[in-house]
Amino acid sequence: MEKKTLGIMGGVGPLATMFIGEMIVRQTVAEKDQDHVNTIITNNTNIPDRTAFILGESDENPIPVIVSDAKRLQKAGAEVLIIPCNTAHSFYDEIQNGTELPVINMIQETAIHAKEKKAKRVGILGTTGTISTGIYQSACEQLDMEVVIPDEKIQAVVMSLIYDDIKAGNPADSEKWNMIQKAMDEAGCDEIILGCTELSIVRQELGLTNCIDSLLVLAEVAILKCGYKVK
Amino acid sequence: MEKKTLGIMGGVGPLATMFIGEMIVRQTVAEKDQDHVNTIITNNTNIPDRTAFILGESDENPIPVIVSDAKRLQKAGAEVLIIPCNTAHSFYDEIQNGTELPVINMIQETAIHAKEKKAKRVGILGTTGTISTGIYQSACEQLDMEVVIPDEKIQAVVMSLIYDDIKAGNPADSEKWNMIQKAMDEAGCDEIILGCTELSIVRQELGLTNCIDSLLVLAEVAILKCGYKVK
Repeated sequence: MEKKTLGIMGGVGPLATMFIGEMIVRQTVAEKDQDHVNTIITNNTNIPDRTAFILGESDENPIPVIVSDAKRLQKAGAEVLIIPCNTAHSFYDEIQNGTELPVINMIQETAIHAKEKKAKRVGILGTTGTISTGIYQSACEQLDMEVVIPDEKIQAVVMSLIYDDIKAGNPADSEKWNMIQKAMDEAGCDEIILGCTELSIVRQELGLTNCIDSLLVLAEVAILKCGYKVK
Repeated sequence: MEKKTLGIMGGVGPLATMFIGEMIVRQTVAEKDQDHVNTIITNNTNIPDRTAFILGESDENPIPVIVSDAKRLQKAGAEVLIIPCNTAHSFYDEIQNGTELPVINMIQETAIHAKEKKAKRVGILGTTGTISTGIYQSACEQLDMEVVIPDEKIQAVVMSLIYDDIKAGNPADSEKWNMIQKAMDEAGCDEIILGCTELSIVRQELGLTNCIDSLLVLAEVAILKCGYKVK
């Protein structure tokens, strides 16, 4: 298969961008530098907050900035694009329409992965922005899986893990995770989707093994679509 | 101070590129995505092997590829450049001459850092390519520090850590590190410079605290030169 150059529309958030970059390197079958996926990354920290825009708390629209990054990446040689931010996927159609390059859909790929794992009842963890758009719910329901969303109290704990811990550069608080896990178990979930890139960092910091990490799914699909092999 | 966009000429190696990207995020004083260093990264895995070229084992010249990445990064908005590869700094003048943008000199900054730590006798660990060019030796000697280079046997262990472990995607072997550390101690070094980005990964994997990590020095200088604050 012909090798393609990957473009990462990053900065959403900055640490998650580096994490998926590292995942792509670590998950690629390679014996030397030259065997790895050729990648260009914009870690653009000028992209306005996605959740604030979706919830109507801010009128700073992130879409034009993301579309402009897609163009910058294409000019710099990218042939396949990813955006390592679940919340930003609520604008997936606008982003895909704004570029000639294929943009891999992280939400759809994660739902497909859950289905392949024979999930029946899936808990969705993400920012309030992501949850409110219903993108994961509809992607899972289209594949005939039931969906569980945290109640208001647990959703506040999820947001605190994302914003107060990871985005602020602090370690993940395992107490917060335990509360969330317990609530999902009690709701009868057989799989939990980590539908926020910061939660992927939580997974790695706390060594969680029992959830589907949307960032890892995206990394592996990106490696394959660029013509490389996954470990 | 005016904020500047950082360009990382990466791919040398791919994992080290992501590590410095992550270090920059982690070392920046920030409370939200928008407080982080705006960064563009080319993780270009088509750059020919630097050590093989320096040692005359290959006539594939990495310099034109690196200079072309500097231009791609400038077009994409970069204002300050770094190249997270010690070996590539043996072409520092050619790279700096090939671009209008300032390229931070990792070797010089690391030697300055050692001097600030009052080092007198510094062990230099790096690829055989880096060592053979003498770039670290002259940078340290110009600042009146003595320099120790591993003997042939220990240099082979250093190369094995870099190529057989890290570049091949394997964990760092602590036995190899212990042999190296012992040799440097016996040679009377008061500081050890990790003059290869893969050795920075070794430092993190093995939790080493008693050495100067050139990648970390570069990350911190880059944050400051782009007008951000270091933690």
